[in-house]
Amino acid sequence: MQLWFTEEQTSNLRFSCKIYKTLHREKSQYQDISVIETHQFGKMLVIDGTVQTTEGDEFVYHEMLVHVPMFTHDNPEKVLVIGGGDGGSIKEILKHPNVKKIVLVEIDERVVQVSKKYLPEISYGINDPKVDVVFADGIQYVKENKNEFDVILIDSTDPVGPAVGLFSKEFYSAVFACLKQDGIMCAQTESPFLNSSLIGKIYKDIHSIFPITKLFLASIPTYPSGLWSFTIGSKKYNPLEITWEKQT
Amino acid sequence: MQLWFTEEQTSNLRFSCKIYKTLHREKSQYQDISVIETHQFGKMLVIDGTVQTTEGDEFVYHEMLVHVPMFTHDNPEKVLVIGGGDGGSIKEILKHPNVKKIVLVEIDERVVQVSKKYLPEISYGINDPKVDVVFADGIQYVKENKNEFDVILIDSTDPVGPAVGLFSKEFYSAVFACLKQDGIMCAQTESPFLNSSLIGKIYKDIHSIFPITKLFLASIPTYPSGLWSFTIGSKKYNPLEITWEKQT
Repeated sequence: MQLWFTEEQTSNLRFSCKIYKTLHREKSQYQDISVIETHQFGKMLVIDGTVQTTEGDEFVYHEMLVHVPMFTHDNPEKVLVIGGGDGGSIKEILKHPNVKKIVLVEIDERVVQVSKKYLPEISYGINDPKVDVVFADGIQYVKENKNEFDVILIDSTDPVGPAVGLFSKEFYSAVFACLKQDGIMCAQTESPFLNSSLIGKIYKDIHSIFPITKLFLASIPTYPSGLWSFTIGSKKYNPLEITWEKQT
Repeated sequence: MQLWFTEEQTSNLRFSCKIYKTLHREKSQYQDISVIETHQFGKMLVIDGTVQTTEGDEFVYHEMLVHVPMFTHDNPEKVLVIGGGDGGSIKEILKHPNVKKIVLVEIDERVVQVSKKYLPEISYGINDPKVDVVFADGIQYVKENKNEFDVILIDSTDPVGPAVGLFSKEFYSAVFACLKQDGIMCAQTESPFLNSSLIGKIYKDIHSIFPITKLFLASIPTYPSGLWSFTIGSKKYNPLEITWEKQT
């Protein structure tokens, strides 16, 4: 028997992985959550039919989303992650010894529970005592907390469903206010091959709020087109000015 | 009606594009050659079921295969392309004003004819008076020509079928001898996510022959994993030492 998972990456493009089996399926209050075991990329978290993360290539996404802003900031002690209920970003943030507190704000408690149960290799950092998990709307959380964080990471799903508001100018303004005076944000911002107009809009929006705005790319085989963008908004530190000396 | 083209990128991974129609299909002496019109990437050349090039993303592959070695060489006047019957590399080589002669050695005459007819946007350079097209086995051609070329580009299909020999140490030795004393070669060398052991072997083989060996990467959405590698073997010039001044 052959079993295949297929994601409709766009209406004209499909990505399919052969799977051993489904490890979990449920419909949470917010979305369809599945964990499947693929031959090519190991275990895979799928939300609303879209690949979120896999054992095989999660390292690229999480290392790039986390380490670029974390190394850019001089002394990142308090970090906020919006979304990212799989815990992959947490695991990377914890590698920075300066970090004292991480707040993970995930709207869907089930994503965290499912990831803890089925993807411990990715989610294990969530259990660290430095981590507070808050099940809430990230937009609301950011609005209610001012001048609190050194680094804010927007580790969201695609801009459909619950994540739409995480790609708005209003939200980036609230992120600015939620950051300390030398704070830095980094967001996943979709595929340059498939979402170029969205990326342009996001860049302009962030640039209208933050004095330093930078976009960078990374190759992620299980994401549409295989190339992904990240956008930084920074109040003080410029990622192009970091040096080896500063970080060692 | 929906029509879909599907490539089996590995036995565990499939890539599918919605198509308008097939523009051409034939079985040549060497392989199955098709041109299809996709919604996502425009016209696409498919050989033996594998995407070779598309209107939408050919620029990445051809610009990277060509311009990195061409700008590394001080004065590239005579260039050999092995494979590359679609003409995409020729089009980029012709952008370098120093070039006096390009020899395209393609084993399958039908790839050139089909590309000229159905993909003129990619193949047009083949008609340039600087270009000689030779329908022959690239391995044999390279063995029979010594000390002839400034730059040799190995623009091959995957290492199955007629292209197997283009990934061998014996072939790279013949390429070395076919290059002038300050010559440089560049080969497409598959996906780092899916073919890492092959890439390691190729690198070692080229490095055992050429004093300077460098690997570089580029994102190509229609190739497996979306990330592709290229390997340079150079007798004299180091791509890491080129400067803006040198090239302007």
